[in-house]
Amino acid sequence: MTTLIKSGRIITATDDYVADVFIDGETVTLIGKDLKVQADKVIDAAGLLVIPGAIDPHVHMELPFGGTVSSDSFETGTRAAAHGGTTTIIDFAIQYHGKTFRQTIDDWHAKAAGNCAIDYSYHLAVTEFEPRHLKEFKQVVDEGITTFKIFLAYPGVFMIDDQTMTRVMQAAGDAGGMTLVHAENGVAIQQRIEQLVAEGKLAPKYHAQSRPPIMQADGVARACKVAAFAKSPVFIVHVSCEAAMIELMRSRDEGHASYGETCTQYLFLDESYYDLPNFEGAKYVFTPPLVGKENIEPLWKGLKLGYLQEVSTDHCPFNFNGQKELGRDSFTKIPNGGPGVEDRLSLVYDGCLKRGFTLNQWVNLTSTASAKLFGMFPKKGTIAVGSDADIVLFDPNVKRTISAKTHHMNCDYSLFEGMQIQGEPVTVLSRGKVVVEKGKYTGTKSDGKFLKRGPVVAV
Amino acid sequence: MTTLIKSGRIITATDDYVADVFIDGETVTLIGKDLKVQADKVIDAAGLLVIPGAIDPHVHMELPFGGTVSSDSFETGTRAAAHGGTTTIIDFAIQYHGKTFRQTIDDWHAKAAGNCAIDYSYHLAVTEFEPRHLKEFKQVVDEGITTFKIFLAYPGVFMIDDQTMTRVMQAAGDAGGMTLVHAENGVAIQQRIEQLVAEGKLAPKYHAQSRPPIMQADGVARACKVAAFAKSPVFIVHVSCEAAMIELMRSRDEGHASYGETCTQYLFLDESYYDLPNFEGAKYVFTPPLVGKENIEPLWKGLKLGYLQEVSTDHCPFNFNGQKELGRDSFTKIPNGGPGVEDRLSLVYDGCLKRGFTLNQWVNLTSTASAKLFGMFPKKGTIAVGSDADIVLFDPNVKRTISAKTHHMNCDYSLFEGMQIQGEPVTVLSRGKVVVEKGKYTGTKSDGKFLKRGPVVAV
Amino acid sequence: MTTLIKSGRIITATDDYVADVFIDGETVTLIGKDLKVQADKVIDAAGLLVIPGAIDPHVHMELPFGGTVSSDSFETGTRAAAHGGTTTIIDFAIQYHGKTFRQTIDDWHAKAAGNCAIDYSYHLAVTEFEPRHLKEFKQVVDEGITTFKIFLAYPGVFMIDDQTMTRVMQAAGDAGGMTLVHAENGVAIQQRIEQLVAEGKLAPKYHAQSRPPIMQADGVARACKVAAFAKSPVFIVHVSCEAAMIELMRSRDEGHASYGETCTQYLFLDESYYDLPNFEGAKYVFTPPLVGKENIEPLWKGLKLGYLQEVSTDHCPFNFNGQKELGRDSFTKIPNGGPGVEDRLSLVYDGCLKRGFTLNQWVNLTSTASAKLFGMFPKKGTIAVGSDADIVLFDPNVKRTISAKTHHMNCDYSLFEGMQIQGEPVTVLSRGKVVVEKGKYTGTKSDGKFLKRGPVVAV
Amino acid sequence: MTTLIKSGRIITATDDYVADVFIDGETVTLIGKDLKVQADKVIDAAGLLVIPGAIDPHVHMELPFGGTVSSDSFETGTRAAAHGGTTTIIDFAIQYHGKTFRQTIDDWHAKAAGNCAIDYSYHLAVTEFEPRHLKEFKQVVDEGITTFKIFLAYPGVFMIDDQTMTRVMQAAGDAGGMTLVHAENGVAIQQRIEQLVAEGKLAPKYHAQSRPPIMQADGVARACKVAAFAKSPVFIVHVSCEAAMIELMRSRDEGHASYGETCTQYLFLDESYYDLPNFEGAKYVFTPPLVGKENIEPLWKGLKLGYLQEVSTDHCPFNFNGQKELGRDSFTKIPNGGPGVEDRLSLVYDGCLKRGFTLNQWVNLTSTASAKLFGMFPKKGTIAVGSDADIVLFDPNVKRTISAKTHHMNCDYSLFEGMQIQGEPVTVLSRGKVVVEKGKYTGTKSDGKFLKRGPVVAV
Repeated sequence: MTTLIKSGRIITATDDYVADVFIDGETVTLIGKDLKVQADKVIDAAGLLVIPGAIDPHVHMELPFGGTVSSDSFETGTRAAAHGGTTTIIDFAIQYHGKTFRQTIDDWHAKAAGNCAIDYSYHLAVTEFEPRHLKEFKQVVDEGITTFKIFLAYPGVFMIDDQTMTRVMQAAGDAGGMTLVHAENGVAIQQRIEQLVAEGKLAPKYHAQSRPPIMQADGVARACKVAAFAKSPVFIVHVSCEAAMIELMRSRDEGHASYGETCTQYLFLDESYYDLPNFEGAKYVFTPPLVGKENIEPLWKGLKLGYLQEVSTDHCPFNFNGQKELGRDSFTKIPNGGPGVEDRLSLVYDGCLKRGFTLNQWVNLTSTASAKLFGMFPKKGTIAVGSDADIVLFDPNVKRTISAKTHHMNCDYSLFEGMQIQGEPVTVLSRGKVVVEKGKYTGTKSDGKFLKRGPVVAV
Repeated sequence: MTTLIKSGRIITATDDYVADVFIDGETVTLIGKDLKVQADKVIDAAGLLVIPGAIDPHVHMELPFGGTVSSDSFETGTRAAAHGGTTTIIDFAIQYHGKTFRQTIDDWHAKAAGNCAIDYSYHLAVTEFEPRHLKEFKQVVDEGITTFKIFLAYPGVFMIDDQTMTRVMQAAGDAGGMTLVHAENGVAIQQRIEQLVAEGKLAPKYHAQSRPPIMQADGVARACKVAAFAKSPVFIVHVSCEAAMIELMRSRDEGHASYGETCTQYLFLDESYYDLPNFEGAKYVFTPPLVGKENIEPLWKGLKLGYLQEVSTDHCPFNFNGQKELGRDSFTKIPNGGPGVEDRLSLVYDGCLKRGFTLNQWVNLTSTASAKLFGMFPKKGTIAVGSDADIVLFDPNVKRTISAKTHHMNCDYSLFEGMQIQGEPVTVLSRGKVVVEKGKYTGTKSDGKFLKRGPVVAV
Repeated sequence: MTTLIKSGRIITATDDYVADVFIDGETVTLIGKDLKVQADKVIDAAGLLVIPGAIDPHVHMELPFGGTVSSDSFETGTRAAAHGGTTTIIDFAIQYHGKTFRQTIDDWHAKAAGNCAIDYSYHLAVTEFEPRHLKEFKQVVDEGITTFKIFLAYPGVFMIDDQTMTRVMQAAGDAGGMTLVHAENGVAIQQRIEQLVAEGKLAPKYHAQSRPPIMQADGVARACKVAAFAKSPVFIVHVSCEAAMIELMRSRDEGHASYGETCTQYLFLDESYYDLPNFEGAKYVFTPPLVGKENIEPLWKGLKLGYLQEVSTDHCPFNFNGQKELGRDSFTKIPNGGPGVEDRLSLVYDGCLKRGFTLNQWVNLTSTASAKLFGMFPKKGTIAVGSDADIVLFDPNVKRTISAKTHHMNCDYSLFEGMQIQGEPVTVLSRGKVVVEKGKYTGTKSDGKFLKRGPVVAV
Repeated sequence: MTTLIKSGRIITATDDYVADVFIDGETVTLIGKDLKVQADKVIDAAGLLVIPGAIDPHVHMELPFGGTVSSDSFETGTRAAAHGGTTTIIDFAIQYHGKTFRQTIDDWHAKAAGNCAIDYSYHLAVTEFEPRHLKEFKQVVDEGITTFKIFLAYPGVFMIDDQTMTRVMQAAGDAGGMTLVHAENGVAIQQRIEQLVAEGKLAPKYHAQSRPPIMQADGVARACKVAAFAKSPVFIVHVSCEAAMIELMRSRDEGHASYGETCTQYLFLDESYYDLPNFEGAKYVFTPPLVGKENIEPLWKGLKLGYLQEVSTDHCPFNFNGQKELGRDSFTKIPNGGPGVEDRLSLVYDGCLKRGFTLNQWVNLTSTASAKLFGMFPKKGTIAVGSDADIVLFDPNVKRTISAKTHHMNCDYSLFEGMQIQGEPVTVLSRGKVVVEKGKYTGTKSDGKFLKRGPVVAV
């Protein structure tokens, strides 16, 4: 099977030119001006942007959490991702107490294998790490899982202590990998939650009050400093506020390999959503929570100046009906998470456009930086000879309205309901196969494969 | 008993003038030009600085630690303090596991009462704090102990977790008091210690390598952020390095009541002392350890600009022979601490003089700021009508050499052996009584009384 | 003449105690508990704060400016100051082109001598400084004028270039004095003014738009850096915004003797006043202009943390009727300045009270710091034996409303009209003489004397 | 003429892959795996890096300066550049007083046209800019000169005032261009120079003492703030020290389009070179001067983190014999400048290698960022279909020693004499023509053409 994409405006994290792209099987093999080659399929990309398939390195499909399960399966979630122009996701295989790394990964394989529309991988979320686990840890790396997640939040559930943090960071760094950190001071927050509950403060907005920016700044400071102590790279997930970003920035300025992401919700929404009537604030209960709107432009600035490396979604949807409602009596029972995997590429495009980012910066933030940091480059993250033909044709001019009525995620609401944005993925190729064509899904539920990842590449 | 100090140059944290000071009993009652009053004792202070008695808010007398006991008893230690111009000390009553606050304080009273040359108090070092302890906590405050110490270091010994930290801070703040924090990441450091020991790295210098500045910066960042979260003031003890000071400064700049001290050893010595031959590096094994000399001037700058509030000693002496030697096999067995209570006032004078500090700043750093922050002002910390007549006559011009041969501390070495400095306390009054006269001790071992302290006063 | 102030609560920049103060002639000679002395006059200060007379180091009496003259003469202005608890002012003797330093000072003496209710001095504003002026410069210092002002603003009028700045700074520093800087980039601002005028933007609010914070930050950065280059202390007048304060703070942090003040108007008012109808915005046209209200709390924080050293008024009143109206056609013709000398002590008290400053900090900001920095300490700025008896009895509890109807300044409006504040000076002594008694003026127009000042004292 | 580069490892600012590159005439037209195409010339690049031709945006060929002329003509200088892997230079056409922009550019064309081995352009250095010059300014932009240089240094020669600065910045910004600034406080420095000369301090090292980092920081702060005021992008040339870089970084952090470069000499050399005997310090007399070596790693860090955008050379050679010697009597007569255009690509490679930069970062710093910022992208700065075939084959493994004996610049000494580095350009193509082949020059003196540049592209 060969495919020729003609006359598109090719945008990578660096380049911007008009040319034809020829795909042989799953791979880009030729790029040229007015290519005179035969192809099984020819796609006219005139007037469209031709970009590397987007990568969402932070999603949670069918995750058991808070007594329920996130509402997108790998099948529905990855299909929605494909609709949104995302061709690779990284989920988190979470080690439950008593499980080995092996069992954990196998459990995730059991859910994902054969059910994904696009390529996928997992970060391994470690909750227990003694010296005796080092051998198995190295096996995990050899299998292509090179990034590890730890939680400084959720005491008694996922939270690890600073000794485990140090061990994971050293082991990951030694292996050429990296440690991702959910950086909030879980213990101090738990203390505050108990106070709020004791005071009868149970509405969704108290979720936000229980974990203010300073407790995230605390977590980021600690994670970065311990990582520097361990001489290992560190990556802070879902940075939601300027205070936390500043800690990250300072660490980089001090010479450490400290990276981080923010998520679409933090770039567009603020804490005022918690005041919505009829318990609708619960739709916005995720962790970290939304914060004051004075944080939004600093986060965009951070993306422009390299204080943050990419934008993910932390996609972890729960339906409002039947799931979010579990917490009507108390914010502590609201399943934490929201839908987003489908909207990211377009939302970030729209936000970049309004703030004078270059198209290259947009591609970098949504694809290339993640490909490099998470060990998938140059297979993913660029349009270049030899790379996987994960390609999106993006119409930069179309205007549309985001709505749960039209989205493909299995969730009965949208975080961005009614938002008018510019730009839309039109056609999506995953390893050379057209999985979305002019907005229609043309793939199968087993097009996606588990992706072995390699060492971290600095950005 | 009345005393008249004539013609001295009176220096407070603000003032600088020549006058006579009249003391009736224990208290200053009159200050004037050429006072025509009768007095039982007249002291000629012409040519001398007349300053408030110095306060050392951080000492450990006869402290059981590491299988031995710090070598100065309250008797010998406070007498040495008096020789050095210090008229008030604050020790730390440390709650050992299983002890109540009550028992802890009584234990300390048993050691100190009747044995002190000068007035004394304790910070209560809390190692366990459940809600049920709150009532006893308030009793402690009512008894005049308004400041509390917690350790983020020494896991398994004194270290508390972030929940306890939050609770102590809230309780202290609610009571008008303050929490003092030994701010190092004890867990990560312990991990490093174990690695060093496993590698056979056992010399004194590895003590310093096991706890580098970044782990202190981590502790300071966490303590300040949790205190801000708890809306309570916080005081960082023994800040030894610029990195930690910067965290403290940032917290103040963000609007929090975050204070701190450094100690004389960090203002004059650096890590090169660990390379001394014949195990002499062990003399400098205390916590935090000495650091690179590039930290020294920034600490002085911090004292000048208000990033740090005062200078203490963390006086905790162990003899080289018989005590420090316990760690010949491994730095982990060296008792942590060093002598210093006697040298502080003079050392700080000398350092201030060389760096263009005003005399007012010197008095503030060695007396007034501590009096305010630790709830003793205006009883202590100034020369004013109504204040305790804790007064030092200081000769600003005499030059001398510090040496263990001449010091009064019960320790067989000096941290500052051979250092030539300018300035010396000549005569020392404690609550109106001359306890040191022209360098001779004239007091008794029970002149000092337990000092009830009140709320923190902002500086 | 002797005076006894009984039972007041004496507050200095450090102390806080209840005692009696005895004044012999112009000087405090005795402070004690329940003094048993005879006095010609006895004042009961029970329930009142007894503080050092306030110092306003930045005023402009009867200053020719913009084709008119500021509306307070030395007589009316210093009387109003006395009413407000201010017992010392420093005006600016401005060197007009072609005048020598000598002539300039003599011109100011001609206006002030015999006409002042309180003690006064001048900073010398230098507009021309060639090497040949150095001799005269030293004579000025010998006469007790030790501080010099330069303008980076007002091109063609007062502005000097960087060569003159360097020379003045070096000469002032060499003489133990200090250079005060009006720090705005006058040239770039002038360019903007011309653009605004060309666009017909002539309303008062365009005054503010023509000189935004970044142009003040520019001036402060330059002044501090050139002063550091010249190894001389520098003092930035009327810092109005956080951006400028940060430059000052950074310079201090880098080790330079960089000081600054803000003024009452910047601590209470913001740029929204320029939108007042009926040309009333003109009342707030002074330089630098009011800025966004997000600057107000940072300025207060700066006062608390020592980023700024004192609060002055830049008192330079012009009546709305007949003077401010000169600029109805164009903001460029509005006389720049506003009234304030009378309200400062009370306003700062009120603001400090609301923000948890100590009384000591209040006294320092309104009196002591200026006394030290501008070479008047300990004669002025404290209550101590030997100091001038410039003393204010301040009622900390009375509440009142500021209004032009009741103020004593010769100006037909108040910047703070209708503002309700707490605290009021009741009785004011200037060098031992009661010049205001329970709100009534009891002095004469020649009570005040020219004050010789000495070297700068670091704070 | 067609050329095929086979099997090289292609590195762009983003990509890293092995492929063949086909060039038709002057342009890359095809990139593919194992291309089966005929070509007039086939170059085997196996084992070599294939990178975009380097761009040096800051050189001065045959520049009249200080009574002599820089020793490289456009002919010798561009040939040396080509040897070093540089395929584009930007010189500075400097407006001498009395000359129009037109005349200035024509004067430069007269020197460069027909004499360049590689493509070239000029920044226009403006020394006079009245409103009447705006029309001619726009014509310059239309001709493809979109970047403008101003000097805050060299009073009386090139220095402009802040009004001119504002005007140039506004005009450049309005035209889509950018203003480059030599940012030192020339006036204050001139004052210092006069002092040094008066004191008889005339050796080369006093050149450095006359212009310390704080005066560069001053210039950078002012340029960035005025640019922000004018809402125009600004680019600081030859940032030599951390203090200046920090001002630049802060401006970017505040949201302004503030960019900058450093030069190879500041990345490898420090002020100790001024102490060389026999007047050899004069070899290192350029502006800004070398500074303390504590600045070197911060500059490299700045390149890694995006505080600085690229590395240039400020190539402006003068022979030691006959030229530098002009200043034997006084540093003020030493022609300012040094050779460097040939060594940059290799030096930066070596420095990047030692500090863990990626190859992509190296390419970005030496080519891509300059192409974008100075309006030449994607014609220059990348290897992509449609781009000019400016391509360097670089051997990453060869080790060699830099020496004036072997370099091609017309200068009798090297700044980096004896330095051992890794990496060397082997073969260089300029618009498809091989101008250097295995180290031999194969071009002609008229291969290079004047390059029209377009708007600034953000990086």
